[in-house]
Amino acid sequence: MAAATPLLKDELDIVIPTIRNLDFLEMWRPFFQPYHLIIVQDGDPSKIIKVPEGFDYELYNRNDINRILGPKASCISFKDSACRCFGYMVSKKKYIYTIDDDCFVAKDPSGKDINALEQHIKNLLCPSTPHFFNTLYDPYRDGADFVRGYPFSMREGAPTAVSHGLWLNIPDYDAPTQLVKPHERNTRYVDAVMTIPKGTLFPMCGMNLAFDRDLIGPAMYFGLMGDGQPIGRYDDMWAGWCTKVICDHLGLGIKTGLPYIWHSKASNPFVNLKKEYNGIFWQEEIIPFFQAATLPKECTTVQQCYLELSKQVKKKLSSIDPYFTKLGEAMVTWIEAWDELNPTGDNLAKLSIADGPAKTKK
Amino acid sequence: MAAATPLLKDELDIVIPTIRNLDFLEMWRPFFQPYHLIIVQDGDPSKIIKVPEGFDYELYNRNDINRILGPKASCISFKDSACRCFGYMVSKKKYIYTIDDDCFVAKDPSGKDINALEQHIKNLLCPSTPHFFNTLYDPYRDGADFVRGYPFSMREGAPTAVSHGLWLNIPDYDAPTQLVKPHERNTRYVDAVMTIPKGTLFPMCGMNLAFDRDLIGPAMYFGLMGDGQPIGRYDDMWAGWCTKVICDHLGLGIKTGLPYIWHSKASNPFVNLKKEYNGIFWQEEIIPFFQAATLPKECTTVQQCYLELSKQVKKKLSSIDPYFTKLGEAMVTWIEAWDELNPTGDNLAKLSIADGPAKTKK
Repeated sequence: MAAATPLLKDELDIVIPTIRNLDFLEMWRPFFQPYHLIIVQDGDPSKIIKVPEGFDYELYNRNDINRILGPKASCISFKDSACRCFGYMVSKKKYIYTIDDDCFVAKDPSGKDINALEQHIKNLLCPSTPHFFNTLYDPYRDGADFVRGYPFSMREGAPTAVSHGLWLNIPDYDAPTQLVKPHERNTRYVDAVMTIPKGTLFPMCGMNLAFDRDLIGPAMYFGLMGDGQPIGRYDDMWAGWCTKVICDHLGLGIKTGLPYIWHSKASNPFVNLKKEYNGIFWQEEIIPFFQAATLPKECTTVQQCYLELSKQVKKKLSSIDPYFTKLGEAMVTWIEAWDELNPTGDNLAKLSIADGPAKTKK
Repeated sequence: MAAATPLLKDELDIVIPTIRNLDFLEMWRPFFQPYHLIIVQDGDPSKIIKVPEGFDYELYNRNDINRILGPKASCISFKDSACRCFGYMVSKKKYIYTIDDDCFVAKDPSGKDINALEQHIKNLLCPSTPHFFNTLYDPYRDGADFVRGYPFSMREGAPTAVSHGLWLNIPDYDAPTQLVKPHERNTRYVDAVMTIPKGTLFPMCGMNLAFDRDLIGPAMYFGLMGDGQPIGRYDDMWAGWCTKVICDHLGLGIKTGLPYIWHSKASNPFVNLKKEYNGIFWQEEIIPFFQAATLPKECTTVQQCYLELSKQVKKKLSSIDPYFTKLGEAMVTWIEAWDELNPTGDNLAKLSIADGPAKTKK
C-alpha cells in the first residue's frame, strides 16, 4: 500500500531540545521526515548541531532566544531541557510533539516499529473521559466502548488537550529510585490509553509528549530550571501540575499510556540527585498546593488561568523558598512573551517583534 | 515444582450466585478447589443445584435466607444475582471473591491459563495509590515502581479494599450498546493493574470481583433488584458507587485491571433493556449525587458511613422515584442484618440468631 499523507502534516511541529548532533533522527526518519522540526539548542550557542539531511527544521540557540524575546528571555531556562518550551512558543502550528534526543523507536509485542507520533495524534483527535472512569480504558478505541453503568450524558467526552506517552527500557525514575534499582528496565507493554480523571494530578514527563497548542499551549511552561536555579528535572512536572489544574478547570482531558518510545540511556543518578533534591523536598508541599488549587470561573482562557495560578504560586509557595516568587514572576513573563509571539485579535496591536528564527532549512 | 499452599486458603470464601448446576466449576477446579465456596441459589428453592464433586461448599436458597434473616430478609433481592451479597454477609472470612457462573478461565497472551483468584489476592495484599496517579500503573508490581515526580510521602499507599477484575470475550456492556454492537468482543489483554483515583467514580462490575470484608464488607450491599423492583442489573453499580465514596472517605484503595476471566455468553439485550431502562435514566442523577456526596468525619466505620449514606439517599434521591426511599430503608436493614451475623465486641450482646446454613458439604 502506498503511504497515505501523514496525519496533520501541516498542523504539527516536533520540538526537540538538544545539546548534541541529532543522529537519533535517523531512526525516526520514516515517521518524522514529513513534519517540521523546531530544534532548541541548549548550552553553548557557538556549537554547531548537525541535523541529518532531508529534515525540514528551524533551529534556535540561546542567542536567537535572547534576540527574539529580549528581556523576556529570562523566563526561558538555560542549560536544562526546560528550554524546549521556547519551541512551543514560536511554533505556529496547532499541535506539538516533543521528544528527547535519547529516545528511539520502540517495538510493539508483535515486533513492529511503533509510530509514536501517529498514536499521539490519534489520542489528541479523539475525546477524553475525565469525569467518570471507564474500566475498559479508552472507550473510543477500536474494539472498546463505554461499559455498563457509564452515564450516557458523559459519553461525548471532553476535548483532549494532552497525550502523555510512556517509555520502554529505561523508566522515568527519580535519582533515589535510579540509585536503588540501577538495573530495572521497563519491559511491560501495556496496551492501553486512558484519561487521567478530573481532580487527579499526575507526574507529566516531557520525554514523549504531545499537546494541542490552541487548547493548552500557554500552560506548557517548563519553568525556571538549570543554570542559576536551585532545581532541575522538575520542568515537565511543573508544566504537568499547572496543565492538569487548568485542564480540569476548563473541562479538557489528558490522556496517558500508548505510545511507547525506547528510552535508551539512564541519565547519571548522582547528577540527577543534585538537580532534584530540592524538588524532592518541595514537591511535598507543591503537590498539596496544586491538589487544592481552584480557579475562579471568570478565568475562561488558558492565559487567564495561568496568570491566576502565578498569583497563587507567589502567595502560597514563596514561604517554601524565594525561588517561587521568581518563578511566579517568570510565569507572567512567559504569558507576555507567548502573547507577543502568538498575537490574536485581542493582542495583535501589541505585536512589536519582527525577527524570525536564526537558521531555517527546507 | 510442587504446588505451594494456595494463598489465603483459610481466609477467603468464593461467593457464587446461581440458578443452575455449577458445571462451570470444573474448569476452575485447579484454582478454586482448595477454597470454600458459598453458593447463593437464586429463584425456585425447590430446585436442586448440582455442585461438582470435591468442592467444599455451603449453599443457601431463599428458604435459608428467610429463615436466617427473618423479616430482615427483605433486604436481599430475589430473582436477581444481587442475592449474592447474602453470601458476603454469612461468610466468616476476611476476603471474598465473587464470580458469575458464566465466567470461565481466560488465557494470557502467552496462552497460559490465568489464575484469576491468585491475581486478585495479589491486588488485595499490596497497597493502592488513590492520592496521586502513577503513569507506570501499579508501582508495587514486579518490574515497576513510582515514577519521577511521585511524592515520597505517598509511596506507602493506602490499604486495598477492592480488586475489580475484567473480562475477555463478552464485554460488560449495557443493553443499548449490546444492541448496537452485538458482535463486539473484548480481545485486548491490557497487562495492568491500577488504582482508581480518589474522588473518581467507576462502574463496578460484580462478575469478577474481590474485596476485603474486614475493610469494606458492609458497603458491598447489592441493593434491591429483580423481583418486585423497578430495576435490575444495577446491583453491582449501586455497590460500586457506595463503596467508592466510603473508600475515599476512609482512605482505602480500589484497584482495577488484571485479572481477566473469559465471559462466555452475552445475556439477552432485550431482557437487559427491560431491567436497565430505569437505571439508565436514573444514573444521570444518581452519579452526580454520589460524585458530590461527602461523609462527616465522625463516620469512622463502614457501618457508620453506610448508614449516613442511606440517609442522604432517602433525602436526595427519593424525588427521582419512591423506590429510593425503600432502598434507603433496605440499606439500614442490611447493616442491621450484617451486624447480627457479624457480631463484634460492640454488638455481640445483640446476637440472637442461632441458625447455620442449610446444606454444608465438606
